[in-house]
Amino acid sequence: MTQDLSRRKLRAGIVGGGQGSFIGAVHRIAVELDGQAEVVAGAMSADAGRAESSARAWYLQRSYTSYRDMALTEVVRAFLEQGIHVVCDKPMTFNLEEARELVQLVEQKKLIFALTHNYTGYPAVRHARHLVSSGAIGTVRKVLVEYLQGWLMEPEENTGNKQAAWRTDPSKSGIAGSIGDIGTHGENLLEYITGLKIKQVCADLTAFVENRQLDDDANMLLRLENGAKGILTCSQIAAGEENGLVIRVYGTQAGLEWHQMEPNTLILKQQGQPSQVLRAGQPYMSPEAQAATRLPAGHPEGFLEAFANVYKLVIADIRRSGAGEAPLGGYPTVYDGLRGMNFIVKVVESSQKGGVWVDF
Amino acid sequence: MTQDLSRRKLRAGIVGGGQGSFIGAVHRIAVELDGQAEVVAGAMSADAGRAESSARAWYLQRSYTSYRDMALTEVVRAFLEQGIHVVCDKPMTFNLEEARELVQLVEQKKLIFALTHNYTGYPAVRHARHLVSSGAIGTVRKVLVEYLQGWLMEPEENTGNKQAAWRTDPSKSGIAGSIGDIGTHGENLLEYITGLKIKQVCADLTAFVENRQLDDDANMLLRLENGAKGILTCSQIAAGEENGLVIRVYGTQAGLEWHQMEPNTLILKQQGQPSQVLRAGQPYMSPEAQAATRLPAGHPEGFLEAFANVYKLVIADIRRSGAGEAPLGGYPTVYDGLRGMNFIVKVVESSQKGGVWVDF
Amino acid sequence: MTQDLSRRKLRAGIVGGGQGSFIGAVHRIAVELDGQAEVVAGAMSADAGRAESSARAWYLQRSYTSYRDMALTEVVRAFLEQGIHVVCDKPMTFNLEEARELVQLVEQKKLIFALTHNYTGYPAVRHARHLVSSGAIGTVRKVLVEYLQGWLMEPEENTGNKQAAWRTDPSKSGIAGSIGDIGTHGENLLEYITGLKIKQVCADLTAFVENRQLDDDANMLLRLENGAKGILTCSQIAAGEENGLVIRVYGTQAGLEWHQMEPNTLILKQQGQPSQVLRAGQPYMSPEAQAATRLPAGHPEGFLEAFANVYKLVIADIRRSGAGEAPLGGYPTVYDGLRGMNFIVKVVESSQKGGVWVDF
Amino acid sequence: MTQDLSRRKLRAGIVGGGQGSFIGAVHRIAVELDGQAEVVAGAMSADAGRAESSARAWYLQRSYTSYRDMALTEVVRAFLEQGIHVVCDKPMTFNLEEARELVQLVEQKKLIFALTHNYTGYPAVRHARHLVSSGAIGTVRKVLVEYLQGWLMEPEENTGNKQAAWRTDPSKSGIAGSIGDIGTHGENLLEYITGLKIKQVCADLTAFVENRQLDDDANMLLRLENGAKGILTCSQIAAGEENGLVIRVYGTQAGLEWHQMEPNTLILKQQGQPSQVLRAGQPYMSPEAQAATRLPAGHPEGFLEAFANVYKLVIADIRRSGAGEAPLGGYPTVYDGLRGMNFIVKVVESSQKGGVWVDF
Repeated sequence: MTQDLSRRKLRAGIVGGGQGSFIGAVHRIAVELDGQAEVVAGAMSADAGRAESSARAWYLQRSYTSYRDMALTEVVRAFLEQGIHVVCDKPMTFNLEEARELVQLVEQKKLIFALTHNYTGYPAVRHARHLVSSGAIGTVRKVLVEYLQGWLMEPEENTGNKQAAWRTDPSKSGIAGSIGDIGTHGENLLEYITGLKIKQVCADLTAFVENRQLDDDANMLLRLENGAKGILTCSQIAAGEENGLVIRVYGTQAGLEWHQMEPNTLILKQQGQPSQVLRAGQPYMSPEAQAATRLPAGHPEGFLEAFANVYKLVIADIRRSGAGEAPLGGYPTVYDGLRGMNFIVKVVESSQKGGVWVDF
Repeated sequence: MTQDLSRRKLRAGIVGGGQGSFIGAVHRIAVELDGQAEVVAGAMSADAGRAESSARAWYLQRSYTSYRDMALTEVVRAFLEQGIHVVCDKPMTFNLEEARELVQLVEQKKLIFALTHNYTGYPAVRHARHLVSSGAIGTVRKVLVEYLQGWLMEPEENTGNKQAAWRTDPSKSGIAGSIGDIGTHGENLLEYITGLKIKQVCADLTAFVENRQLDDDANMLLRLENGAKGILTCSQIAAGEENGLVIRVYGTQAGLEWHQMEPNTLILKQQGQPSQVLRAGQPYMSPEAQAATRLPAGHPEGFLEAFANVYKLVIADIRRSGAGEAPLGGYPTVYDGLRGMNFIVKVVESSQKGGVWVDF
Repeated sequence: MTQDLSRRKLRAGIVGGGQGSFIGAVHRIAVELDGQAEVVAGAMSADAGRAESSARAWYLQRSYTSYRDMALTEVVRAFLEQGIHVVCDKPMTFNLEEARELVQLVEQKKLIFALTHNYTGYPAVRHARHLVSSGAIGTVRKVLVEYLQGWLMEPEENTGNKQAAWRTDPSKSGIAGSIGDIGTHGENLLEYITGLKIKQVCADLTAFVENRQLDDDANMLLRLENGAKGILTCSQIAAGEENGLVIRVYGTQAGLEWHQMEPNTLILKQQGQPSQVLRAGQPYMSPEAQAATRLPAGHPEGFLEAFANVYKLVIADIRRSGAGEAPLGGYPTVYDGLRGMNFIVKVVESSQKGGVWVDF
Repeated sequence: MTQDLSRRKLRAGIVGGGQGSFIGAVHRIAVELDGQAEVVAGAMSADAGRAESSARAWYLQRSYTSYRDMALTEVVRAFLEQGIHVVCDKPMTFNLEEARELVQLVEQKKLIFALTHNYTGYPAVRHARHLVSSGAIGTVRKVLVEYLQGWLMEPEENTGNKQAAWRTDPSKSGIAGSIGDIGTHGENLLEYITGLKIKQVCADLTAFVENRQLDDDANMLLRLENGAKGILTCSQIAAGEENGLVIRVYGTQAGLEWHQMEPNTLILKQQGQPSQVLRAGQPYMSPEAQAATRLPAGHPEGFLEAFANVYKLVIADIRRSGAGEAPLGGYPTVYDGLRGMNFIVKVVESSQKGGVWVDF
């Protein structure tokens, strides 16, 4: 059954993200940024009062609290089973088993399911992926990924900081701390840009803050499917670091470097040639990068715009779906979520065994 | 008469900014970004077909073309006279006389009138202003402002580029080219951050591209009201520059440096002490900077968010107005617009007389 | 008369630069760096004790104090008249008249006379000059030069700081403060890189520190001989700035940017193309840049090496002179010194007349 | 027996470093830079002709070729046995056994033996060490070291490049390629700055270039003696990288970051406080950093000056030795060389066993 979605904004609902969270507003801004969709309903908190006040702050037409006792996966499943497309924040599920079940459900329902690995939304990241896939850097040999934060260097979870509390609580976050929260972003970015799968990992996880139950720091050696080698390091105890996601990829022809905190720039490094500073919004950028840019070069776009770029592709696919056309993709899907959950399991296994190599 | 605006989004209309313009979408995104207002009506183009298709692309409820023959100032006046608050892009008017008339009308109508000198919306800029006004850098001695672009280094106006065409056409842009388009942003930023007025200018304007009728480059010496000295240089023929607005302010105690293209960073320079890298979103930032930040530090916010920050203050004031409360301000107003028009007149006069000092 | 200089190090003497000065050691290191010359004699101070101890610290074979009452120009003249090649620090003379006399003497004696405008010694500067002269950036349109320091932002001259004292004392430094000390470096660098002469200047000099008799800050508008426009700003009261000499040159084809404090990098900016990061020591650099590089790329060379590069060319010419061959040049000469003195005179004149345009 | 070394330059001899090598000139410049020593003799090549011409180019008084058939260690031993102080380039010996013998000999002879881990000579590195040892960053938790080059990304060893040939030849370089050539610099820098020893390593070495016999890339997980964790990655196939030695250290109080290619800057990162940009030559730097600085801040010093700083301490100790005083040290010694050789052995062992943890 097709719907005529061509003459109106799409309508979206949000579960979670109530007042006190920052990612709720990120999703609302991102889904609405390009004027193609609007949030009209929400079940924004398990707490009825907060759900109501959160909805009122956004002038939502409908506010619910009925999902208040549900786990994340059940929420997602409930919407899918009602034929509603889903954009899901990461981590996708609580554990690997749930992830596998979700894959099955999505395949069966033929609905759009997108995962907000939002860093894939940056134009410079999309151009990096384009450069690799088009052969501009040759065969990938070495990948260096780092994601450094400092905000958990003290026991913030004991100070009433809810963001810190759930991230360091195994009953809420499962088996992974920093590697689930930020390490999976690094893993996804690596695979997104290089088009290569991680084949083996050797991990050394640490909980540096006393009494913390989940890792707040991780160092990993990687081997990729094509023989390339790599490093992934993530930390939430790296004093003074804000949101330092950086990726460098070296191939047989050239290298690439991208920093999330200066996201509109991509460095192309060629041995014996001047490095090139590629900039979002410039005419030499690839079509997929151009499509993710709203402003002329030099007018910085940031985290919200990248987030909105994920939604932009999803919205386009929902419209296509309404018109009976096949989706075009380009955003992270349920399979990325499954790979992320698998990554977590393997990394934890490696570290728990003392830092041994584990196959993916 | 007060209105209860507290329980709904504000409704906005837009004049101009139809398809082919980039600033139209900027205004729409900015006004709606924080979920406090929405664009519901537009007269987006003098061309009926474009007005209609522009409105449809945004799913606007109402589309008009009736302002198609009106000059900018008449549009603004028409709305003000109907008691409608106005957010106006810069340049505010075609000439100084119109600017003076508009000041009178705004004063008389007691409506909100905001001018989108959008660079004042960046948190780091607001913090810079805070540091100067709180005495952190001492008495200002020297100010260096530059705004460098390269996109008009060739005669783009002859290639069908509409953006280039109106900016270089005296019948559309009046007496000023680059100094009106970008120089006034530099002037406004200087006065916004330092709280000081320019007292005298000595300007050397040039139209480097053959047959261009308006300046595409300007170098200016400045003297400020407190005895400080400065430079303002702007250019649209600076090869390879994107949108290079940079300001440096040196006082008797410390110096400041801010780059629009890396907008979340502000450098504080102290003689004989380490320079400090101040970052938007950090707890040490001033309340006015914090209020202009949506995301944790390290999650870059950019041009659109800064633009939305101007709207955010305007929306708050419109709500206060609806509740019968006095406006709080904090955004550029009709007086900034008047000063900008005066700046243009004086700079052109200085240059036309061969580069002499002209009093403000 | 030729001398066989091919089989031994050259022997150099130094006048001035005794203990307490930093530039004395700079010259000694620079002249000796490449193993082609050695300092064997010195009259390093007007104070006999300091002259002796300075010479002893360097193990000099011969120490003199006989020049103790002589002005700079007389020292230089004395050596030239004895047929001794001279490398002279800047400012070359006390005033313009002396500069003109020195030009005559050098022309008459046919000796090597080099002026240590040492910033011309950086490989990236030499490459910038090469790019301009080879047409890579097209016709120069705009030049921005800045030289910012903060070390005189307080009245250091009253604290026993000898370096500050002579620079702010008209009886020692003549009519110019910051423009003589650092502004002339900017002027020389501009002309060295662009190959263009300054034709007109409009200057606004200030002595910000109370009771200071010479300028500690200057803002200047420039017009070059080919119609290009420019700005030169220098300051010694720019809080927190160390030795911030920066030049940007924009032509009809491309732009260049170089920072003395990151001297091994030169940025080439092309409209609509990625900026290129050119690095000293790379194979794509021009022969004159390569000849000024001792180490592989990525092994930073700095101020001393650049200084030594000036000496390197001088030493080569002295050897050529000894062999009866014509000098090859490439280093600043007595004519650069004359232009620098003229620059000072014109800038001071412009400012004293209220900031008017003065012809060179 | 003491010697009166106080009234003359020290005399040095050099073995190796003849024409075609770049490190020979580095040593000569470094030893002579501060005017405290001079190279008077050399056995600069195994090839008699090259030895002679190399010596002549430097105007050496004495040139030898008699060490032409000797291995490095034998040369060093010969000098030590004649009571001559030795400054030795790294790698110190061919293998671990020789390193142990050399330690014994040095201990027995009571002579100065310095190893040119030259990166310890940078003022910013010395200040970093000071900050760690003084407790300014608290207890070290995480260390990230990278040393990235690209110059061996192609089989340069087959093109007549002698520098590439010996580095990739097991008969010349022993069991290690990149980890011996540059990895040991990283290891030494880590231990120098943190004052901590590496306790365990898990390494993954690769020879990416076809038919290359020694590693050209290495990724390593580290565990330090105090429980800190770390990463060390080095590569000579990282396209476009020049000499990218970078170290970041995160403690319980603050973090540090230093880049060899911008060596005069040290970043101090404090959670919730502005990052501080510490600069060589500033008055707030520690005495050991100040002593390693020749010029005012902002006048860049580089690789040669850092190299000379190692020599500077050695020369001071040789003078002290001549006066019968105890050495003060501060430069890498034979024990650092031994640790470096041990590091190589352990890393290779780890990798050959498939990437397992190996104890130091």
